[in-house]
Amino acid sequence: MMRAAPSPEEARRHNLGTLLRHIHLRGAASRAELAEGMGLNRSTIMALTGELTAAGVVREELPREVRRRAGRPSLVVRPESTRVYVLAFDIGVDRLVAARVGLGGVILERRESARPRGPFDPDEVVGALASFTRQLVRRADRDAVCVGAGAAFSGIVRSADGMLRYGPNLGATDVSLGDALSRRLGLGVSVAIGNDANLGALAEHRRGVGVGCNDLIYLHGDVGIGGGIIVGGRLLGGADGYGGEVGHMVVNPGGRRCGCGSRGCLEAEVGEDALLARAGQVAAGRIGRDAVRAVVDAADRGDAVARDALCRTGDWLGLGVANLVNIFNPAMVVFGGTLRDIYLGSAAQVRSRLATHGLAAPRERVKLRTAELGDDTTLIGAAELAFSEVLNDPLEVLGRLRAASSGT
Amino acid sequence: MMRAAPSPEEARRHNLGTLLRHIHLRGAASRAELAEGMGLNRSTIMALTGELTAAGVVREELPREVRRRAGRPSLVVRPESTRVYVLAFDIGVDRLVAARVGLGGVILERRESARPRGPFDPDEVVGALASFTRQLVRRADRDAVCVGAGAAFSGIVRSADGMLRYGPNLGATDVSLGDALSRRLGLGVSVAIGNDANLGALAEHRRGVGVGCNDLIYLHGDVGIGGGIIVGGRLLGGADGYGGEVGHMVVNPGGRRCGCGSRGCLEAEVGEDALLARAGQVAAGRIGRDAVRAVVDAADRGDAVARDALCRTGDWLGLGVANLVNIFNPAMVVFGGTLRDIYLGSAAQVRSRLATHGLAAPRERVKLRTAELGDDTTLIGAAELAFSEVLNDPLEVLGRLRAASSGT
Repeated sequence: MMRAAPSPEEARRHNLGTLLRHIHLRGAASRAELAEGMGLNRSTIMALTGELTAAGVVREELPREVRRRAGRPSLVVRPESTRVYVLAFDIGVDRLVAARVGLGGVILERRESARPRGPFDPDEVVGALASFTRQLVRRADRDAVCVGAGAAFSGIVRSADGMLRYGPNLGATDVSLGDALSRRLGLGVSVAIGNDANLGALAEHRRGVGVGCNDLIYLHGDVGIGGGIIVGGRLLGGADGYGGEVGHMVVNPGGRRCGCGSRGCLEAEVGEDALLARAGQVAAGRIGRDAVRAVVDAADRGDAVARDALCRTGDWLGLGVANLVNIFNPAMVVFGGTLRDIYLGSAAQVRSRLATHGLAAPRERVKLRTAELGDDTTLIGAAELAFSEVLNDPLEVLGRLRAASSGT
Repeated sequence: MMRAAPSPEEARRHNLGTLLRHIHLRGAASRAELAEGMGLNRSTIMALTGELTAAGVVREELPREVRRRAGRPSLVVRPESTRVYVLAFDIGVDRLVAARVGLGGVILERRESARPRGPFDPDEVVGALASFTRQLVRRADRDAVCVGAGAAFSGIVRSADGMLRYGPNLGATDVSLGDALSRRLGLGVSVAIGNDANLGALAEHRRGVGVGCNDLIYLHGDVGIGGGIIVGGRLLGGADGYGGEVGHMVVNPGGRRCGCGSRGCLEAEVGEDALLARAGQVAAGRIGRDAVRAVVDAADRGDAVARDALCRTGDWLGLGVANLVNIFNPAMVVFGGTLRDIYLGSAAQVRSRLATHGLAAPRERVKLRTAELGDDTTLIGAAELAFSEVLNDPLEVLGRLRAASSGT
């Protein structure tokens, strides 16, 4: 609160981080654009990009199309995506994904496996992800450097230490998955862990449909319903990082039983089980995202039972959206995971409920959209979590990269 | 997003604002404390406090108790509360308040009048507040300078231009009250307007029970239920400043009719009318905060009808609190206005519902508290809104103050 303005050394770190963040999020840019965007003169920009180039984080090239204008063309600064990368993991209820993601947000390579539903076994998850990681690292360029790692988990994660506190099929004991995974990978990077919906929000805000939108709610449908909320451009974490659990907002007191022990939570009325039960699929043993998508498809083809199940689910989803619009006044609500399909199949119900229960002022300008990054939303969010730490302390990473270069 | 580190001129403005904000919020401090807190050397602090002293915003004095230590004692910097003040207004459903509030948050003088319920007449409100202001300004010291003005309004306010968009008894037409009031006051300051619950949150965060707590939800009971939410130390505004309307979160679909046109909103189940109707008071024509307090008192004395009305209201309040705890993971929930009394009379119900519907992780550390600033919470919040603009651009105000000094 009482922070003084930055010292010259802090200012340099800040400017390096800002520059690198811009290149990472927006892609290649000319020195002239960077100078103008940051309000710095060209010699200052040149010193900054020179430092990043020397460390091998970016490269500077002549622009591909040189316009016929007086003077030298401004060099274009590009991220070294294959050289500087993070590991991203997505630990869903039904699947495990691991990927190498390069600076600039490029998925360089990925591995995925299905997970049977059952008790959450940390050793098994750590083992599978470590095995994927060995394969991914082996195939990286020889001079490539892993600068961080992040994982998305479909449950509640404590921000201070990455402890898993609650999740579907997670036992009563808290699990310190990040530490276990970091040790097992043995790459000298620690694995940051975040809630999957929070990371989905981060991904859509930085690289998806929500770019430029500083007040955004991301709703993620998997087995349950998660939420990630961007407030004033920053992810809402709350006191301990548990913020955004909109799936456990009670919308129907006395309604369907929820896995959390309460009743009528948004998740209990809109989650996978609610839709599949209404569509008569649970009795038939059909579960998972394919089953959800099959119901939406059947409704689309005119199946009356599926249509009715989807409408009733959309009514509750719309009520939840209206509540969130009143509470947050977001510029955008984004539907991801299976909620993408459910929303597309019940948009009329959602909009109708929003009109009934949303106040005129906050709803008049809100946009309802679907996630642009598809099934990779949470994975890309995990990569962004890992890159965040790099961008917040670029000097530490630059030192590491220079050491790696001199070692080869 | 692409902001470079501040220039020396920006750094000076930042440091002046930081210093002034500290003196304003935390009171007198020695130069040595300020130097240590801001991580600046004593000569830099001396230059900054010297500039503030020259403008008459603070004064520097020898400490009252000089400890027997080697060297000169560090001068203590105090806010010039009677010289530098803002005007604060509270436009409630039942009352109008105006006050002169000095730097440091001291209420120097106030005027208050009751308002009969009925259509909102902007001219009448502006007239009454302008009349109060003339009285307040006339009694200020001759060298005192009004540096800003803020107003709390019990309804939805657009942040961009202070337009009133929705409120109890507000007609269909949007009202530009801030502009009208600024013109009528004729003091050369513009009146910033905010939602009363938002400003209550700001006040409790800066000066009340929530000092030091960066994730806080303030729930305000007047006729309706308002909310103000501090996320990561900053007030949640949302895309247009309408954020925090938790009173219109539906907690009981098909429940009591709400003034907003929906049903079962938190406000409809917990607001003044809900409690008074359950206690059989509406039929008797009793309304307002005194009637609410009378029901709480009757319950406290053992009146069965009042007790039952309060319990049922507390149940819905607890459900609303549980939802908000799940969504925000706040460190604290603060009850103000009439909700202070309702919460104190139904804390067992509120806590029981929170235990039933709140997830273990976010509820394990949340504190439930009552507003510390009592009925002045929203008024002090209005003053803080006015001071915020001063603290964000101290150079502009310093210039104004120097001009005022040289003019006398």
